Amino acid sequence: MGKGLPKRSEDYSLWYNELVKKADLAENSAVRGCMVIKPYGFSIWEKMQRYLDDEFKRTGHSNAYFPLFIPKSYLSKEAAHVEGFAKECAVVTHYRLKNSEDGKSVVVDPDAKLEEELIVRPTSETVIWNTYKNWIQSHRDLPVKCNQWANVVRWEMRTRLFLRTAEFLWQEGHTAHATKEEAIEETKQILDIYADFSEKIMAVPVVKGYKTESERFAGADDTLCIEALMQDGKALQAGTSHFLGQNFAKAFDVKFANKEGKLDLVWGTSWGVSTRLMGSLIMAHSDDFGLVLPPKLAPIQVVIVPIYKGEEQLNKIAEKVESIKANLEAKGISVKFDDRDTYKPGFKFAEWELKGVPVRLAMGPRDLENGTVEVARRDTFEKQVMELDGLEAKIEGLLEEIQHGIFQKALDYRTEHTTSVDTWEEFQEVLENKGGFILAHWDGTAETEELIKEETKATIRCIPFDSKEEEGICVRTGKPSKRRVLFAKAY
Amino acid sequence: MGKGLPKRSEDYSLWYNELVKKADLAENSAVRGCMVIKPYGFSIWEKMQRYLDDEFKRTGHSNAYFPLFIPKSYLSKEAAHVEGFAKECAVVTHYRLKNSEDGKSVVVDPDAKLEEELIVRPTSETVIWNTYKNWIQSHRDLPVKCNQWANVVRWEMRTRLFLRTAEFLWQEGHTAHATKEEAIEETKQILDIYADFSEKIMAVPVVKGYKTESERFAGADDTLCIEALMQDGKALQAGTSHFLGQNFAKAFDVKFANKEGKLDLVWGTSWGVSTRLMGSLIMAHSDDFGLVLPPKLAPIQVVIVPIYKGEEQLNKIAEKVESIKANLEAKGISVKFDDRDTYKPGFKFAEWELKGVPVRLAMGPRDLENGTVEVARRDTFEKQVMELDGLEAKIEGLLEEIQHGIFQKALDYRTEHTTSVDTWEEFQEVLENKGGFILAHWDGTAETEELIKEETKATIRCIPFDSKEEEGICVRTGKPSKRRVLFAKAY
Repeated sequence: MGKGLPKRSEDYSLWYNELVKKADLAENSAVRGCMVIKPYGFSIWEKMQRYLDDEFKRTGHSNAYFPLFIPKSYLSKEAAHVEGFAKECAVVTHYRLKNSEDGKSVVVDPDAKLEEELIVRPTSETVIWNTYKNWIQSHRDLPVKCNQWANVVRWEMRTRLFLRTAEFLWQEGHTAHATKEEAIEETKQILDIYADFSEKIMAVPVVKGYKTESERFAGADDTLCIEALMQDGKALQAGTSHFLGQNFAKAFDVKFANKEGKLDLVWGTSWGVSTRLMGSLIMAHSDDFGLVLPPKLAPIQVVIVPIYKGEEQLNKIAEKVESIKANLEAKGISVKFDDRDTYKPGFKFAEWELKGVPVRLAMGPRDLENGTVEVARRDTFEKQVMELDGLEAKIEGLLEEIQHGIFQKALDYRTEHTTSVDTWEEFQEVLENKGGFILAHWDGTAETEELIKEETKATIRCIPFDSKEEEGICVRTGKPSKRRVLFAKAY
Repeated sequence: MGKGLPKRSEDYSLWYNELVKKADLAENSAVRGCMVIKPYGFSIWEKMQRYLDDEFKRTGHSNAYFPLFIPKSYLSKEAAHVEGFAKECAVVTHYRLKNSEDGKSVVVDPDAKLEEELIVRPTSETVIWNTYKNWIQSHRDLPVKCNQWANVVRWEMRTRLFLRTAEFLWQEGHTAHATKEEAIEETKQILDIYADFSEKIMAVPVVKGYKTESERFAGADDTLCIEALMQDGKALQAGTSHFLGQNFAKAFDVKFANKEGKLDLVWGTSWGVSTRLMGSLIMAHSDDFGLVLPPKLAPIQVVIVPIYKGEEQLNKIAEKVESIKANLEAKGISVKFDDRDTYKPGFKFAEWELKGVPVRLAMGPRDLENGTVEVARRDTFEKQVMELDGLEAKIEGLLEEIQHGIFQKALDYRTEHTTSVDTWEEFQEVLENKGGFILAHWDGTAETEELIKEETKATIRCIPFDSKEEEGICVRTGKPSKRRVLFAKAY
């Protein structure tokens, strides 16, 4: 196991926390609930950003930037929204400090009290719709499709690195449309982008579906989501796309003159993914030896470790490695040659396993003679000796194979851990002993949803898009139901 | 003039504000001092980010992310730093709102008062050095070279879009080194990156130099800067790079075991550029018709406007334009075909002039017949008719010519507006009537610097790197001086 990492089977939660810290992804800061994202972790997030940003732009969105602060009164303008967000948030009340009387520290200057308190944004619908009001007059101004990459703050009481932090990084898209249909189309298009990103880039399979009314975004008419399954059988919501109806347009009086010259309220959407995706990535694939990264997000795709005695051997190997490295890089593969002379190969192997580098090449004097290299896969630990001739193409193929293999493994796990149940006993039994997703009938009421949550801690993750209409009875109340929904305990 | 833009000669300040708003770069938000960066403005900022980020990475820096909030007590740890930054800042005192008694609004919950107030970061030295303390134990851990792209808040009383806002976006680099020499080298390398970026990408010539002691960053032993000259003869500080000595290492107790196993304090640097660069870009080049953008930062480099009567003509032109567009895009040139049928060509010309698109192509039925297109330069308004044959290469060359031409124009302006003066009368006269940079002798004391500032509003922008040693007397006091320094009124 990597550097004293706990085993998943012994303490999954501790394993996760230790892995995040030991693999240099993130750590807690001195400010309660706020994390420091370390360079290695941040470079993975940057790759996520780049892929998503390209997709947003490809589909006609532009980046913009809106203020960090929201006047307190804005939150009250949309009734559901204030219930959902105003409560746990950072409040700025003053704008100046002054020296304390003893001169040894600084204190808040009571004379510098703000007339109206400012909230550090927990999400930006209010401040953005207040801006859109001035941008939108006519149907010619629509659609407006903005995204911003930003930090947000929600004063969570119990925090965990990446999964739930007081401050986190995210992108939030906010669009305005002339018609309901176009806005709904937008929410679906974005959900597809999120799902494709999760499956094809992160190698994490997801279920697409609708949130129930009680799990919807505060202020939305509908929330679409993608749900992933972690290795401990718990679900993780990996992205949401909200159809806002005309709620924020009403709250901020955003109207446009349609083609007939009549004033109409604008239709809206909002959608976001956050550094929480890092948690999904880590928990979906990693093992007791450390991170397992899909090649498409690995900051280093191939690490090369020389096995040598003495400087002369190292120099000969280094010479060979330089040409291998150049050839791989010419294919767009990122390579690190770990020629540190302060660590032994075994230490290096463990370190790069911990950090999830997909492919490791080891080259010793024998390899040099034979024109070969030892190639090891991080995901399966399989090793093979390869001829140097044509190596680049083989490594390129191997990286694709790993990307696919990691996804398939996660998909197989999910398939095994998705159970259809028809009785309450079965529901409880599966939840308790097997975990994972449970497909079960539900009577459609918020009361039953709440009851099940209280009794079992399982929540309705979503009503899957592909859930077939079928006659059934609610597992908890026996009342009639028309389709199965997806239950799980969740992060 | 563009859409009722005031003339620079009539009201430079109003011209600037109106231009920023009318060209869709940014606008004021409802939160005092905080701006909204609009999509067109943000896309320019994104290009700046991309160039700089690539340079930082090329020179061995990694991005990371540190908390938005800083515990109040951290600011007091570095004496000079707290003087410089603690005073005007946003203070978070509470973490919860609750419903007001009448239920109509939300109010701050007095029970949710923080034990220690949090400051919204005005800059991150304190929180980062507190983190580095745990990252650095041995010389093997050095250097640490992190950068972050982030928002910061400084509670400015008088704000102007991009130039001085309460919240702004920036990058802040923070590095830690084993030796003084290496840290100094780092500050110089970064200043070179900033200067090259300003001159080669933004086309804005800059003077590199040292800040005087009283203009140094609060907590630095030395501040290096680049200073640009705007068209109204005022200077703008466009980037700073600080040698922090061991000040923050002392304040946060950051020590490392050197190669001999002895504990040493770490040497530090920090450096940053912000959305203020947008102000520099706008004011250095733009004219009474609107923005003038250097091709390397223009979101749209070439706009194509069809001149037509009726749909049939438009379709024929559009067909031709599609192939021109594809050919230009194949060269990496960004092109917009403005085929809106709701506006006349004259309106479109003015709009793209306002937005600073470097090259405009206009194509009418005559051009279609002749295999030609009309090409207009935004910077000089020169027009010529070009053969379509080989157009891409000609446009590519033209864009380079424009990039160079804009820089040369700004450089000529600066050369004309840099005056060496030897007497106090001359100093005042030039400052009053000509403006620009003034090279003059100064006796080296903070008192004289302050006196000159009070009397004339001119400040010492920097002691230029290339300032020759020469005997002289201070223009204000007549005391001896060894070199000229650079004075100007500044933004």
